[in-house]
Amino acid sequence: VTLADGKDIRLDQDRERRIGIAEAVLCAGKSVDQIARIIDQDTAPRRLFTRLDTSQHAALPEAARARLAYDPLSRTAVLGTLQPPLPPTRIAIVAAGTSDLPVVAEIERTLAFHGQAATPFLDCGVAGLWRLLEQRAAIAAHPVVIAVAGMEGALFSVLGGLVGGLLIAVPASVGYGVAAGGRAALQAGLASCAPGVVVVNIDNGYGAACAALRALHVAALPG
Amino acid sequence: VTLADGKDIRLDQDRERRIGIAEAVLCAGKSVDQIARIIDQDTAPRRLFTRLDTSQHAALPEAARARLAYDPLSRTAVLGTLQPPLPPTRIAIVAAGTSDLPVVAEIERTLAFHGQAATPFLDCGVAGLWRLLEQRAAIAAHPVVIAVAGMEGALFSVLGGLVGGLLIAVPASVGYGVAAGGRAALQAGLASCAPGVVVVNIDNGYGAACAALRALHVAALPG
Amino acid sequence: VTLADGKDIRLDQDRERRIGIAEAVLCAGKSVDQIARIIDQDTAPRRLFTRLDTSQHAALPEAARARLAYDPLSRTAVLGTLQPPLPPTRIAIVAAGTSDLPVVAEIERTLAFHGQAATPFLDCGVAGLWRLLEQRAAIAAHPVVIAVAGMEGALFSVLGGLVGGLLIAVPASVGYGVAAGGRAALQAGLASCAPGVVVVNIDNGYGAACAALRALHVAALPG
Amino acid sequence: VTLADGKDIRLDQDRERRIGIAEAVLCAGKSVDQIARIIDQDTAPRRLFTRLDTSQHAALPEAARARLAYDPLSRTAVLGTLQPPLPPTRIAIVAAGTSDLPVVAEIERTLAFHGQAATPFLDCGVAGLWRLLEQRAAIAAHPVVIAVAGMEGALFSVLGGLVGGLLIAVPASVGYGVAAGGRAALQAGLASCAPGVVVVNIDNGYGAACAALRALHVAALPG
Amino acid sequence: VTLADGKDIRLDQDRERRIGIAEAVLCAGKSVDQIARIIDQDTAPRRLFTRLDTSQHAALPEAARARLAYDPLSRTAVLGTLQPPLPPTRIAIVAAGTSDLPVVAEIERTLAFHGQAATPFLDCGVAGLWRLLEQRAAIAAHPVVIAVAGMEGALFSVLGGLVGGLLIAVPASVGYGVAAGGRAALQAGLASCAPGVVVVNIDNGYGAACAALRALHVAALPG
Amino acid sequence: VTLADGKDIRLDQDRERRIGIAEAVLCAGKSVDQIARIIDQDTAPRRLFTRLDTSQHAALPEAARARLAYDPLSRTAVLGTLQPPLPPTRIAIVAAGTSDLPVVAEIERTLAFHGQAATPFLDCGVAGLWRLLEQRAAIAAHPVVIAVAGMEGALFSVLGGLVGGLLIAVPASVGYGVAAGGRAALQAGLASCAPGVVVVNIDNGYGAACAALRALHVAALPG
Amino acid sequence: VTLADGKDIRLDQDRERRIGIAEAVLCAGKSVDQIARIIDQDTAPRRLFTRLDTSQHAALPEAARARLAYDPLSRTAVLGTLQPPLPPTRIAIVAAGTSDLPVVAEIERTLAFHGQAATPFLDCGVAGLWRLLEQRAAIAAHPVVIAVAGMEGALFSVLGGLVGGLLIAVPASVGYGVAAGGRAALQAGLASCAPGVVVVNIDNGYGAACAALRALHVAALPG
Amino acid sequence: VTLADGKDIRLDQDRERRIGIAEAVLCAGKSVDQIARIIDQDTAPRRLFTRLDTSQHAALPEAARARLAYDPLSRTAVLGTLQPPLPPTRIAIVAAGTSDLPVVAEIERTLAFHGQAATPFLDCGVAGLWRLLEQRAAIAAHPVVIAVAGMEGALFSVLGGLVGGLLIAVPASVGYGVAAGGRAALQAGLASCAPGVVVVNIDNGYGAACAALRALHVAALPG
Repeated sequence: VTLADGKDIRLDQDRERRIGIAEAVLCAGKSVDQIARIIDQDTAPRRLFTRLDTSQHAALPEAARARLAYDPLSRTAVLGTLQPPLPPTRIAIVAAGTSDLPVVAEIERTLAFHGQAATPFLDCGVAGLWRLLEQRAAIAAHPVVIAVAGMEGALFSVLGGLVGGLLIAVPASVGYGVAAGGRAALQAGLASCAPGVVVVNIDNGYGAACAALRALHVAALPG
Repeated sequence: VTLADGKDIRLDQDRERRIGIAEAVLCAGKSVDQIARIIDQDTAPRRLFTRLDTSQHAALPEAARARLAYDPLSRTAVLGTLQPPLPPTRIAIVAAGTSDLPVVAEIERTLAFHGQAATPFLDCGVAGLWRLLEQRAAIAAHPVVIAVAGMEGALFSVLGGLVGGLLIAVPASVGYGVAAGGRAALQAGLASCAPGVVVVNIDNGYGAACAALRALHVAALPG
Repeated sequence: VTLADGKDIRLDQDRERRIGIAEAVLCAGKSVDQIARIIDQDTAPRRLFTRLDTSQHAALPEAARARLAYDPLSRTAVLGTLQPPLPPTRIAIVAAGTSDLPVVAEIERTLAFHGQAATPFLDCGVAGLWRLLEQRAAIAAHPVVIAVAGMEGALFSVLGGLVGGLLIAVPASVGYGVAAGGRAALQAGLASCAPGVVVVNIDNGYGAACAALRALHVAALPG
Repeated sequence: VTLADGKDIRLDQDRERRIGIAEAVLCAGKSVDQIARIIDQDTAPRRLFTRLDTSQHAALPEAARARLAYDPLSRTAVLGTLQPPLPPTRIAIVAAGTSDLPVVAEIERTLAFHGQAATPFLDCGVAGLWRLLEQRAAIAAHPVVIAVAGMEGALFSVLGGLVGGLLIAVPASVGYGVAAGGRAALQAGLASCAPGVVVVNIDNGYGAACAALRALHVAALPG
Repeated sequence: VTLADGKDIRLDQDRERRIGIAEAVLCAGKSVDQIARIIDQDTAPRRLFTRLDTSQHAALPEAARARLAYDPLSRTAVLGTLQPPLPPTRIAIVAAGTSDLPVVAEIERTLAFHGQAATPFLDCGVAGLWRLLEQRAAIAAHPVVIAVAGMEGALFSVLGGLVGGLLIAVPASVGYGVAAGGRAALQAGLASCAPGVVVVNIDNGYGAACAALRALHVAALPG
Repeated sequence: VTLADGKDIRLDQDRERRIGIAEAVLCAGKSVDQIARIIDQDTAPRRLFTRLDTSQHAALPEAARARLAYDPLSRTAVLGTLQPPLPPTRIAIVAAGTSDLPVVAEIERTLAFHGQAATPFLDCGVAGLWRLLEQRAAIAAHPVVIAVAGMEGALFSVLGGLVGGLLIAVPASVGYGVAAGGRAALQAGLASCAPGVVVVNIDNGYGAACAALRALHVAALPG
Repeated sequence: VTLADGKDIRLDQDRERRIGIAEAVLCAGKSVDQIARIIDQDTAPRRLFTRLDTSQHAALPEAARARLAYDPLSRTAVLGTLQPPLPPTRIAIVAAGTSDLPVVAEIERTLAFHGQAATPFLDCGVAGLWRLLEQRAAIAAHPVVIAVAGMEGALFSVLGGLVGGLLIAVPASVGYGVAAGGRAALQAGLASCAPGVVVVNIDNGYGAACAALRALHVAALPG
Repeated sequence: VTLADGKDIRLDQDRERRIGIAEAVLCAGKSVDQIARIIDQDTAPRRLFTRLDTSQHAALPEAARARLAYDPLSRTAVLGTLQPPLPPTRIAIVAAGTSDLPVVAEIERTLAFHGQAATPFLDCGVAGLWRLLEQRAAIAAHPVVIAVAGMEGALFSVLGGLVGGLLIAVPASVGYGVAAGGRAALQAGLASCAPGVVVVNIDNGYGAACAALRALHVAALPG
């Protein structure tokens, strides 16, 4: 399967201009050979790669790997330079437990790639409600809050009643039985009794970060 | 379809002796004629009827209806006498919102039929957490807590981290979209991050009350 | 089921102070009697009622009905006064077809209740893409875009690649077969290939409006 | 992802005081590195680890492994000392078949960690009903009965008609086809025709044990 | 939509010759007009109509209704004569509760149409196991046993361990929540731990009766 | 919800030019008022309305109804003139049973609206295979075959092995239990062991007819 | 987890006497150690083991393996002797394709263990209908027919219209997409338009064979 | 499991004559030994093998492998010769992203096996709509268009409004969370708001190619 120009990759190089977010490359489901070709053919100065697991990364050609800044926890890689984000920090990331850290890290790295810092609030699961309540004011000071939770996802509704900014729920594929794959947490976000909670796909830390970036555009856009 | 003795009903008259809970008659799915025949053929002094909706009740023969103490909110009827339960009150019923009241009422009536009182705590949905927290001590003073919630069912996990007695979650068929039919709340109870939450079927107030009765046997039984 | 003070309703009167959005009353699943009691017991100057269908509204006591400003298309009612929202208009509502109008109307009324105006863009289904493309610039000028679509929900992804502000997808229960109940559109929003699309529950126009209000807080909040 | 104090773990050290059950660490879905850090940072004298599979356990650092009492069948480990529980034995564990033993063992270890003994009744599947009936009196002598079954989970309803104490159903992920993953057994517990059966998540032996502990609080609590 | 010969019905008049069971007319989903045309155009001496509900039956033209022997409980009608079946009775029908009677009646009528008698055993739900056990020998004396149960369908497995003849499970759409529509009972039959239980579609009393007829062919066929 | 020009309907008047099929109006889910406004505002000479049920049709204003040619079996209406289609007949419609006739009629009317005739082959369910086999040659003479079947949808695979033209499967919502809503037939079409069977949504006779029209374009288009 | 007598296995040694079928050991989900202990503790002269995959078998202790007659295609093993079954052959096994052979083999071995022969009819998928039709008479000569099919399972309905004996459908987990795991074929069997088709769980060759054995009891039993 | 003639494979050698498409061998779910036997026993001059993954291919006997032309991307192999297809090219293949290439390749190879060429249009995902729009005329020039997309499958509806030929949607198992396994894309194709889109099973490139071949028969067949 090849195109007339000998390439088989056509990235949406215009996306950043249109919507303020550059196309990222989702590596899950792609072969190592395809990822290497993308690195090779890409003409943009910087690119974010998501869901690049350690075995895919290890199998990349030496030359390709050398051009990537790779982080195994978040499974992200950056082609080109990644500057530490500058203040102010307008985004909080609240997570229910340790198992949610890969998603938290994907959010952090995606935001950092776009120049935004974030404050993490970890181990805030509602079974020990005091952990969340004692940080309530610090969380609510951020205009955008991203919440990450698996299992029953009760964190989304509790937070929704406590903070007034945009609240983005990321269901995590944490749990077993009826929670397997993150479905219960997904439904918890969608069915939340707290008004105005919004939801992204299961484990979609990248999408939650992009939604936060969009929300920050609200302040910047005319209106 | 008739049996040799001309009857077509064989209630489990021995159940109360075996397990301490008499068989109740679930009226949903039964015809008015069948319910009337059960009232007619039953030989026990008292019987609880559940899910008897107002149209079924209204269609019963005059004589049958006269023998029943009917409550439309809980959709329960009692054949024979119903004594007001005496203290002590060892069971709390915590509900998320107004739409959960039919389930709350079914729990109350089932407990009352078996001589147990209960204390209701209403409108404790987690989107307004203060309503639950300000009653936390009063709830936790009951050794058995029954929680009723629809939508995302976050109440179950929040309560599970606050009370040490038996916590029985009753998912309610309250909500729409992914919450329709009570499925999201059911999964929330099962996937709860709080330890030891137990769950009954959607809208099964009768079952939750029976589980509470079983738990009260724990104190009474040898061991 | 009554509480000690003779009331059985405890609205979250503090919510507006905490998160900037007052509690609304979801009428679906409540009896006419319960709704009337809420109207009677409520102590707040203004209240939004959602999912109040025409038969429920018609069955309310005369006095209660007289206090409500009711709109049958959106199935919302306002207790107290509803001022027409003032400019600027920072929210666009893009809908795929005529069947989505009840959801569009619920969004408009919820926003108006909170003082926000919105611009509707109707009949923008992607099967006739020109209808969307010819209004692209006008839509993108709004910092918040709410998209309403049933069936396969392709509108969400197409819009997601065209606008840079916050994009809130509302799946509508429009369609039959695999689209019945809005499930296909819900999945389309969650699985969107466009970055940063966020989703609310099926037919949840109220929730989408609240999320838009939260996003407008982003500009107002410190950060 | 690190917090200000250099730690990334915040266990709910207060939980045992609040509800009588200490937080356990669910190892499924956690990396070996995360588990090792929890062992390292934990300040409590004793801790239960669940779902620690043999490969995770083997990959832990020597020092961490030395501090754990590990049991491969139940996949649990105890940090600190585990005293053999003392009589009386108030909990029966009834299992349908050999494949349910890992769940049975998780229940036993969780109870033992909290000082409670339990009596196992194995291979009580209803296809050979005599095996259950001949032990009926012995089982019913326990005020709390935990039943473990996969496949169609008929055991739950049969037991529910025979014992009067609290009956906790644990669906096991035993079986294939429609039984795969334990869904059929889960539904059997929830839809049981026996009154007052309560259910926990699939394979959730830990949760069933915690529910039994809560039920034993019923006798201890005022009321 | 009409065919060349002016008819629009082509019944499988050859079926009884081929497989020993005549085609029946499933009335659910057919209009009254279509049912009337079938009665009019049918050339066979006898025909069984199933799922003919009382409102459809009442709306049929006088002439058509006069030719049918209608039974409202089973929702079946017979065109032509229906002889009472003669002994021996080789089929037992075991039902869990009163709500299953419409399915039991459909089985009885279908068998009677084909000349086979059946013995009903009612109210044999496993929550009161003694009711089943005291009739065990009488049931097991029939070479074919049809079991009808809704809710969790535990009856199928218990019977499967007690009788040696062919056991046909009919899940009934009895119950609510996870049991709604008969799905839980269906899975119970399929996942049964008892060997060799076979299952038909939910509420398919007609199909279960036909399967019993096929089984009776086993004795009659060469082999 | 109104637009600047006072209209709220924007039909895709350009569609027929682009793809050879005019936009049809799906009436399911639209209010009578909305349908009447569409009839009023539409500027095209002809329009097809689908899923217009008899109660909607009866409730339309007299003037609107007078402009429509309505057919209750197919639930379609035509605004403007409907010419009988001329030969040749290149499309066969094969249906499994009487209950499929509404879908068959929708296909016929949609094709006729676009000038195409079709030949119906009714009552071809595979349980009486001779009915299909005796018409096999007549069916296979049509370059496009549309098959309509509910229940288990076995017709699709059997036909797929017998005809060489395009085979379009339309699952019908005929049946109960696991077949309810047409899901089993849908899966049968998608999972067919016959090569190259294509499928449309459940009950989507309109879509199947449009696909047939697209296929007839194959002969007409260059290539 | 051990019992008082030091054993942890209690097989249903009485089952063959009760229902004519001995308990078999399902090895899926059991550890190698558990299987070895069963072989060691079993007191019966003969035992059938199912779902014993090649890696489990290879890992058994030498002594245990020496006592088993193992067949890798069917994944069955026999402890004790397996006599070749004698005529007459009353059971036909009809399979749709090569991928169904493991299920066919499990049926054959289970029947052989119980002394019954069977005739296989392979590659009878309905996409090439002639293969089935040319063997129709040979198949129909068997009073019991077991059909094995994955994908869309159309074979069940076609056969159901051609043979008059008992027809047992075994859905096979063959296929991908909507057919994955055998769900589509399962629904095809349950929703079959042919009268009296009965179904067992997906891939349950053992269960289908047991059902055939039960059916053969019909001829032998009084009645 | 062997047949009388010592073979166990009966391919449908007559299929090409009947419907113009030869039987292909689906290797997924078949053992290496079975595939080798098919290669050995097949009597046709040419045969297409699909879903032959690299590990299966590598494990085939040397002699068998030597007779196959294998392509790892499409996982197809050809027994016998494969001629490059000749113009004209009447089929376009439009794909949303790089992850869809294996499906694209399976389509290409299946078409080539049957002598048909195809033009690929890659990376046409709707999030960057310009990539699709700039090739719109080139795509629409093909009378048959096959679209491949995973995630939310919005491509199907957008294309459906732009091209007038037959449009075949192939959902791809690309994505995670609610998109996992291709279900969301499948529903998008079926629920499409564009008229006449037809759908095949998830990842079924082979089936889509066969449907295209059937459509090309439309031009060739009488009518």
